[in-house]
Amino acid sequence: VNKVAVIGAGSWGTTVAALLSERVETWLWARSPEVVDEIRHRRTNQAYLGERRVPEALCVTADAGEALEEASLVVLGVPSHGMRSVLEGAACVVVPSVPVLSLSKGLEEGTDARMSEVIADVWPGHPVGVLTGPNLAEEVFDRQPTAAVVAIEEESLARELQDLFTTDRLRVYTNPDLVGCEIAGVVKNVMAIACGMAVGLGYEDNTRGALITRALAELTRLGVALGGEQRTFAGLAGIGDLVATCTSGKSRNFRVGVALGEGRPLASALGQRSVAEGVRSCRPVVDLARRLSIDVPLAEQVVAVCHEGRSPADSVASLMARAPRSELDDRTHGEP
Amino acid sequence: VNKVAVIGAGSWGTTVAALLSERVETWLWARSPEVVDEIRHRRTNQAYLGERRVPEALCVTADAGEALEEASLVVLGVPSHGMRSVLEGAACVVVPSVPVLSLSKGLEEGTDARMSEVIADVWPGHPVGVLTGPNLAEEVFDRQPTAAVVAIEEESLARELQDLFTTDRLRVYTNPDLVGCEIAGVVKNVMAIACGMAVGLGYEDNTRGALITRALAELTRLGVALGGEQRTFAGLAGIGDLVATCTSGKSRNFRVGVALGEGRPLASALGQRSVAEGVRSCRPVVDLARRLSIDVPLAEQVVAVCHEGRSPADSVASLMARAPRSELDDRTHGEP
Repeated sequence: VNKVAVIGAGSWGTTVAALLSERVETWLWARSPEVVDEIRHRRTNQAYLGERRVPEALCVTADAGEALEEASLVVLGVPSHGMRSVLEGAACVVVPSVPVLSLSKGLEEGTDARMSEVIADVWPGHPVGVLTGPNLAEEVFDRQPTAAVVAIEEESLARELQDLFTTDRLRVYTNPDLVGCEIAGVVKNVMAIACGMAVGLGYEDNTRGALITRALAELTRLGVALGGEQRTFAGLAGIGDLVATCTSGKSRNFRVGVALGEGRPLASALGQRSVAEGVRSCRPVVDLARRLSIDVPLAEQVVAVCHEGRSPADSVASLMARAPRSELDDRTHGEP
Repeated sequence: VNKVAVIGAGSWGTTVAALLSERVETWLWARSPEVVDEIRHRRTNQAYLGERRVPEALCVTADAGEALEEASLVVLGVPSHGMRSVLEGAACVVVPSVPVLSLSKGLEEGTDARMSEVIADVWPGHPVGVLTGPNLAEEVFDRQPTAAVVAIEEESLARELQDLFTTDRLRVYTNPDLVGCEIAGVVKNVMAIACGMAVGLGYEDNTRGALITRALAELTRLGVALGGEQRTFAGLAGIGDLVATCTSGKSRNFRVGVALGEGRPLASALGQRSVAEGVRSCRPVVDLARRLSIDVPLAEQVVAVCHEGRSPADSVASLMARAPRSELDDRTHGEP
């Protein structure tokens, strides 16, 4: 890899670009000329990363062509709902057949497509993968120790990307299970809203432990039905990312859930600019599950609260009121 | 069940006794006459539960014979290191062949025995089980919603205990996998010390998410090698209890880990009276693992810090420094 283009200057895109710029020529594309100016001259991206400073080596541009020209790796850090249009806008400038790595953890509304499917649809002929795991951007930027997963089918490419992203504070593992890693990332954002709702209602560590257990069962059921591997969900992309997101005040999805649990309406919970992928993805998740006859009670309650006016208190109460039975019964019916 | 004897008036024993006293005659045995007096007259157990008041219906005694006489269920809430001597002291008064449910999450030092094995050894002829799950005592006492698991082999007895313990805020599941449930409870206390150490060192949500992922892998490996079922570790007794304990300031084990991570010596981290089961169990856990050739890097680091003078910073650094590789490789070697 000689040049990387990182498309999207949100918190994670900027963080990944900053990391990569220390070892390879890296261009960060931001839609907004003001953000480009700020990064160029102040070396900050305040809206997302406060006073953290990106390396001098990081190049930044509002011209996607400049970022993508001769890039031998493309990293996509745009929100899921903007993915297709960003890809379409850049289709004529991306270098054919270079690998593409998605950072986004949502499904496309309307089509229920995973981001790798959207990418393959708009930019055919590229090897496509995801970077995932317990990676809250600010903490990675601050060099707190953690681990991540590169999920891409071709093994030699996976190893190359593993070397590129690994630092002494970010251990990168490879996993050929792209579907499992993607679904885990999508569904955990929905589950983080549910956990946040319980916390916003005043429930504490036991309730959250019980909900995370059910959330893991739910994302495993759906992920396996969609072709993912069971073991992926027990790993960094599954339980690792789920736990980090469901216990962190830095997660936008968790914070939206907390605000909903505290009784604020969705528009106020979302705030002005922030994207909470789980709010948009919960419907596609329930759609996919229905088509496969998979029970997803937590995701259904997130849809009910976010989009159908149900109160979080009713929602959490109904989740806790299901009839008890054996833990080792057939998990396809959703307990616990 | 007509009468229950709860042996041990720590936070969880007292909480379980308080819950049960609302539906069946329940006697709580406390070793200390002062605690008996306090519960009898003030209805509080301040050292463990602050100003929370136990029901008037709960009977309390310092005489184990009075508690155990005609009891048709015995619940054991004594710390693991005191289990054998408490059982020996009461061997002549317990009603033969009544079921015994352990609340303790430790192994016996010296023998490496699980509590159900110690019970079967000292009180032969009783059906033995455990009550486990994400059940921090104060929160259960406060009627926060959560779920628990009764693990006992005989199914009709399991159902009876399930009915006895279930409330509208505590959903109880059954699980015949006694070994898996016990090992999960023991090992999660050791893991909570490791997570606490990382938090005490200043690491946040990503690091904890990555550590919990490895902790789950570690307790699953060991539990399955000892005869537990894989699915148990993905359930309430496994990931549920692990997450609650590794993210809660109410967990003594987690708090000891935080204090160690902040640089305090073990004696000071332990405080005056509190029991942190993980400090005593980490060595037996490593012993068991070595005998089965199972890799338990997190438990080894807890032993090193608690008992061999290693610094938590070195310990966490060595955990994060292992060579990266594929996530789906053979898990018996410990990654991640």
